[in-house]
Amino acid sequence: MSDWSLHPRLASDSVFVASLPLSDLRLVNDARWPWLILVPRVPNAAEWLDLDGEQRQLLDAEMHAAGTMLRAHFATDRINVAALGNVVPQLHMHVVSRRVEDPAWPGPVWGFGQPKPYDDSELQRRIDLLRSHAATNGESS
Amino acid sequence: MSDWSLHPRLASDSVFVASLPLSDLRLVNDARWPWLILVPRVPNAAEWLDLDGEQRQLLDAEMHAAGTMLRAHFATDRINVAALGNVVPQLHMHVVSRRVEDPAWPGPVWGFGQPKPYDDSELQRRIDLLRSHAATNGESS
Repeated sequence: MSDWSLHPRLASDSVFVASLPLSDLRLVNDARWPWLILVPRVPNAAEWLDLDGEQRQLLDAEMHAAGTMLRAHFATDRINVAALGNVVPQLHMHVVSRRVEDPAWPGPVWGFGQPKPYDDSELQRRIDLLRSHAATNGESS
Repeated sequence: MSDWSLHPRLASDSVFVASLPLSDLRLVNDARWPWLILVPRVPNAAEWLDLDGEQRQLLDAEMHAAGTMLRAHFATDRINVAALGNVVPQLHMHVVSRRVEDPAWPGPVWGFGQPKPYDDSELQRRIDLLRSHAATNGESS
């Protein structure tokens, strides 16, 4: 899929974790909640409904893997999944670990307050943890 | 799935449209945006990650049908899809038609302002339209 490139806003707001069969798995740089995004490498896909059945099946498996990964490594009361695309017009699926005591609960995280970037060492620690999980569970390509 | 019953909050906030293979399709009674929910009839499922692969595949098809239905009948700039479950602990997938000029754009609809119920005739008109679409497209059981 040579015509695909990551939207600059997603590139600046998140960090690469792993390349899955359909999507790039990325960690959003916001320490308020463990927040993954899956960005299908499908040129010109702006929303979930743009994917065909085969692509949706791949994304479903990758969402499931991402949610399972969050549950395995972070205290989680609820996994939120969503594709909005109202701000960034490149399809990306959010998979977010929520706690009852997190600052936005029970509201959604999108548009809530200001991102709180990880400090460098914590960011690297999280990326390492997620990459290790992805490699162990066959989610890295 | 005899142990399943609709959560009272979902029952009061939305109106039945059709029974699909996995889920009940319902229209949220909020005239600010065309907003469907799919409620899988799976006992004790609180979040998307609770579904097994076969159930997720059914839900994927029903989400696609719901989004296609919204695009066919309402002016739509973006279809938002999400499973949150932070407020109502019974799995339900949102499929929402968004406009760039809608009151919450580009923010999410969840928790935004107060619902604006349809008047009775408009609600009935919308339900009839959606049921007719579902029946014509084989989405009604």
